Amino acid sequence: MIISMKKGATKEQIEHVCERIREFGYKVHSIEGEERVVIGVVGVGDVTACLESLEAAPGVESAVRISSPYKFVSREFKPERSRIRINGAEIGGGEFIVMAGPCSVESERQILEAARAAASAGAKVLRGGAFKPRTSPYDFQGLEREGLELLARAREETGLAIVTEVLSEQDTDLVAEYADILQIGARNMQNYALLKRLGKCSKPVLLKRGMSSTVKELLMSAEYLTAHGNPNVILCERGIRTFETATRNTCDISAVAVLNELTHLPVILDPSHAAGKRSLVPALSRAAVAVGADGLIVEIHPQPEKALSDGAQSLTLPQFSAMMDDLKPYLRLWKAARAAAATVATQ
Amino acid sequence: MIISMKKGATKEQIEHVCERIREFGYKVHSIEGEERVVIGVVGVGDVTACLESLEAAPGVESAVRISSPYKFVSREFKPERSRIRINGAEIGGGEFIVMAGPCSVESERQILEAARAAASAGAKVLRGGAFKPRTSPYDFQGLEREGLELLARAREETGLAIVTEVLSEQDTDLVAEYADILQIGARNMQNYALLKRLGKCSKPVLLKRGMSSTVKELLMSAEYLTAHGNPNVILCERGIRTFETATRNTCDISAVAVLNELTHLPVILDPSHAAGKRSLVPALSRAAVAVGADGLIVEIHPQPEKALSDGAQSLTLPQFSAMMDDLKPYLRLWKAARAAAATVATQ
Amino acid sequence: MIISMKKGATKEQIEHVCERIREFGYKVHSIEGEERVVIGVVGVGDVTACLESLEAAPGVESAVRISSPYKFVSREFKPERSRIRINGAEIGGGEFIVMAGPCSVESERQILEAARAAASAGAKVLRGGAFKPRTSPYDFQGLEREGLELLARAREETGLAIVTEVLSEQDTDLVAEYADILQIGARNMQNYALLKRLGKCSKPVLLKRGMSSTVKELLMSAEYLTAHGNPNVILCERGIRTFETATRNTCDISAVAVLNELTHLPVILDPSHAAGKRSLVPALSRAAVAVGADGLIVEIHPQPEKALSDGAQSLTLPQFSAMMDDLKPYLRLWKAARAAAATVATQ
Amino acid sequence: MIISMKKGATKEQIEHVCERIREFGYKVHSIEGEERVVIGVVGVGDVTACLESLEAAPGVESAVRISSPYKFVSREFKPERSRIRINGAEIGGGEFIVMAGPCSVESERQILEAARAAASAGAKVLRGGAFKPRTSPYDFQGLEREGLELLARAREETGLAIVTEVLSEQDTDLVAEYADILQIGARNMQNYALLKRLGKCSKPVLLKRGMSSTVKELLMSAEYLTAHGNPNVILCERGIRTFETATRNTCDISAVAVLNELTHLPVILDPSHAAGKRSLVPALSRAAVAVGADGLIVEIHPQPEKALSDGAQSLTLPQFSAMMDDLKPYLRLWKAARAAAATVATQ
Repeated sequence: MIISMKKGATKEQIEHVCERIREFGYKVHSIEGEERVVIGVVGVGDVTACLESLEAAPGVESAVRISSPYKFVSREFKPERSRIRINGAEIGGGEFIVMAGPCSVESERQILEAARAAASAGAKVLRGGAFKPRTSPYDFQGLEREGLELLARAREETGLAIVTEVLSEQDTDLVAEYADILQIGARNMQNYALLKRLGKCSKPVLLKRGMSSTVKELLMSAEYLTAHGNPNVILCERGIRTFETATRNTCDISAVAVLNELTHLPVILDPSHAAGKRSLVPALSRAAVAVGADGLIVEIHPQPEKALSDGAQSLTLPQFSAMMDDLKPYLRLWKAARAAAATVATQ
Repeated sequence: MIISMKKGATKEQIEHVCERIREFGYKVHSIEGEERVVIGVVGVGDVTACLESLEAAPGVESAVRISSPYKFVSREFKPERSRIRINGAEIGGGEFIVMAGPCSVESERQILEAARAAASAGAKVLRGGAFKPRTSPYDFQGLEREGLELLARAREETGLAIVTEVLSEQDTDLVAEYADILQIGARNMQNYALLKRLGKCSKPVLLKRGMSSTVKELLMSAEYLTAHGNPNVILCERGIRTFETATRNTCDISAVAVLNELTHLPVILDPSHAAGKRSLVPALSRAAVAVGADGLIVEIHPQPEKALSDGAQSLTLPQFSAMMDDLKPYLRLWKAARAAAATVATQ
Repeated sequence: MIISMKKGATKEQIEHVCERIREFGYKVHSIEGEERVVIGVVGVGDVTACLESLEAAPGVESAVRISSPYKFVSREFKPERSRIRINGAEIGGGEFIVMAGPCSVESERQILEAARAAASAGAKVLRGGAFKPRTSPYDFQGLEREGLELLARAREETGLAIVTEVLSEQDTDLVAEYADILQIGARNMQNYALLKRLGKCSKPVLLKRGMSSTVKELLMSAEYLTAHGNPNVILCERGIRTFETATRNTCDISAVAVLNELTHLPVILDPSHAAGKRSLVPALSRAAVAVGADGLIVEIHPQPEKALSDGAQSLTLPQFSAMMDDLKPYLRLWKAARAAAATVATQ
Repeated sequence: MIISMKKGATKEQIEHVCERIREFGYKVHSIEGEERVVIGVVGVGDVTACLESLEAAPGVESAVRISSPYKFVSREFKPERSRIRINGAEIGGGEFIVMAGPCSVESERQILEAARAAASAGAKVLRGGAFKPRTSPYDFQGLEREGLELLARAREETGLAIVTEVLSEQDTDLVAEYADILQIGARNMQNYALLKRLGKCSKPVLLKRGMSSTVKELLMSAEYLTAHGNPNVILCERGIRTFETATRNTCDISAVAVLNELTHLPVILDPSHAAGKRSLVPALSRAAVAVGADGLIVEIHPQPEKALSDGAQSLTLPQFSAMMDDLKPYLRLWKAARAAAATVATQ
């Protein structure tokens, strides 16, 4: 921590701050500049409490944390990439994992058609919502248990693993019974009750970035899951909210590169929600491969214009198949880069 | 709904869109412009589903909703202001309601001192967190049930009503046992499981705007509460997330004025979270009165620099008392304006 | 400056950074924390160059400036408020100054009608654009010199001072010949060539905040004007760009309070551009008075729906007159507060 | 245009709006919905003026433009990609163009070293600022004419074309004498005086997106250049301002894909300013190739930690060379995709 005192701070104020720091068990290094006094705080203790306390003390201009607030999810804690096994596939390792499927599970026919197309194009995981977070209480809220059963049927037929969203602590056991990966949606990224609940779950979690959450906050939410017992967290960039309206959200592609520096957890991109528009999905998917993501989660639908939600951003099944073909040479470059990085790391 | 076709849309595409619209039970008005065809959709039906379906249809440029997506909370549905009774006080009527208290309940002494100061300065409601949503899993998470009991003790002594946050569906009954108003925090504004749960509750709800939620989304979340049975919703502007870092959040003061046009629900301002800095709270509080809010929720603490959270934005008890004095002449103008508006409305 | 080294930074890297700091003429205070080394930089020198240089050095995690980057415009440099005289009126002192007028000067009749209404309602300054910054090259670009002449005629008749925008270095002399205050629009807040040019001008400058500029950047642009010779700068908050679309911009009312802490320059609010909607202007104007602004700049028009620009946010002349009446009791409170603050300051 | 009337709009208000529309020379299509009347406006006329006029009329809820506000720069106007020749190279065609160089020209040795490294790694254009837009008036403002001469010397030796920024209308002739491409910086994207001036220039323009400008506004600024006579415009995405602070700006990679749909102009990416951090530049550069940009502009420096500006985001010369090698297989995929698209287009 670094505490900057105000220009005119008195000796008493400075001494008072130093005392408070020592009460928290830290050591003090005071630096007298030309204009103001700056105090370095060294040691181990309750950083947030000390920081907030000092910010409120008289004569203090600002109090800034230097150390990162997360531990288990950081690269410093664990330098090598985490690999998470899901139903035969492994994310975070040497394979780029594609998850695909409709926004909502709507019917047996719809989910089976989507699943078959996903599998035959090379996806390893089927997405599909059974419990849907909708802005309006009057919109379709999902098929719930029936939706989960349809997903299980699709898994049985195609061998795809299942990722689906949990909206409520109370549904967690039900969803975990069917799903291979539990998704926490963007709107619930800071629903701490849900994070704690899924922290106690044995299934991997796909944690989507909140639409106005920073990368650091995303990591703090992942830290909640880990600190409560679940280290199998997959992070997902899905676009953030900005002033730009040409796309549904703004795809923060740099976040993938930043996360690769800061954390050992796998990071995937959701080009569908980021763009909100079908025609942009293939270009963003190529960019995700090139930037070094661990995978993609893509919305597809047998008949997008009959979808109960997100039709405009869903690829048709032939479009998805064409996109997967188009990605192949990029995926070869991706594999070569991963293999090279792994060789360097083990030397 | 208005559907704009792409410039080169074919006759088949246009006809296909019109058919889809009719399938949803709507009527079609097609307008041929110089550049493109625009289709008006008239009637009553499942707007969102139709909209999302059409957005996904070939040849469609954009599909825009005209009618507002909320009903019960709109001024069009109920032109006169809603008044919500809490423990003797009434919010939304002829009285400006101040809620005050510490961020977290920390000890009996702390909460009682804060409550006495709040009551004697003119506040009607005591705020204080027993369950705290913290970014870090390692930070103080609240005293939980013990915190609720301390709040109840403070109510007993001072007569203040209690507002406190519910973080989890599972804690709802427990919190509702003690609180007079249940708060949904900014991070949970779109936690639909929690919204549905509190919709079935008999206590009024204080719904804080999500830090990157639009005014429209705030109203949709209020609509969830109302549609599930709870019409007693108080809205709260608490600052939104923008690029500006001089304040913790950006206080969207216009949102209060906009909400006064769009909804009959009471709207209060939280200057403490909006500013994040104690010295700015009195100026923002005056602005809240002047702009026409129904009340304030303010963080105060007997010793801000010993607070376990939010110290830098908490007023000391004497500062709060001075601010309440400073507000008095503004509150007289507020009352006169409300009385005049009420007279006009009843004529 | 505070330099945080990376966790694994080597001794050589730390020593290298310390050497670089000394090359810039600063002294070094190094603090060894549990996790990393933090280096305090003390002295007087070329801060930005040193900072950017260190950020680029190997082993450096971050380099943060502690001192504020502006001088002349800061409260620390000059604690008492600056008062700027304009044509008899004085802004920044004991009087709240209202500027009003149409977005663009369109005709003699239009500007004279607006000016008369502005003057009779109590405004002291007439606004009106002769050179208009328009997003589209095909939109009305202003009457240019003819517009300036019409403004001068309105001043002659009403006694109002004139504020009008300068778009180009090359028009500066022409505009300065007619105007009493030269406006730099939001889009040009960081047009440094224009800032330098107006720095050499003898007329006061109204500097509007860029729509995505921070408060600190606004002060840096004011510092440009001052450093180049013109200390008579009036700052204007006019709404910032955020994700919210219910208003044209988001009125950052806290910025007024923050600026009052940081600078001695007068600060006014433009509720018209902030809201983009006529009906919200009176409420925001009351808030501006209550929060402690030095004045307002408001768009008015004899026939808003025939305006060539900004009609939707322009008040009609009777609406403006009613708003000014409505503001009167708030202005009495404002005057009393200013007088009290002035008494404290001189004691 | 589509005009939505308020729910309770009277017949007189509706008729009045229709009359106003007809006065502007348009035809009217009125649609009576269940809740409100919506009016379609058809024909050719002064769209902005009509729109702003109607927004201000009584009873109007909103007025929305359907047609795009730009013409010459749109794909609809010119479906095939524009190719712009610069000094032997061609941007927008079958070659991916890399521009590289230091933020500022600082000395002969610095610029020559950078230029040689850029050329030998495969760049075609040398960047380097002679006039620098700096937030602080006290920071290095560039070598001005001397900087231009050094750039010319570097061109002579290496054959690279020169791109450099114009800050002021008055310097345009001077800069155009030396540069092959004139850059308009992000802060000047809506400096209309400068846009008009460069519209009359014969050299191509590199137009950087303003840090909070929408894609549509970027295209409108390009339309200014084109409408005033200069069709040779290269667009540049360089990151937008958002709430995220992990990167200097947020790289809006989707904007490249969106622009490829909307305009025929070439689009390049500036990963250096987008990220603000050297280590992220290679990953963003790969993403730029994969998403389909026409080129890159990258900051490099012989000794980043001695740079007078932007050191932290500048690659060293060996890092740049390594990155260009790393890009080669991605550029082969890029070329193949371009060639395939060109074949489709000519069939």
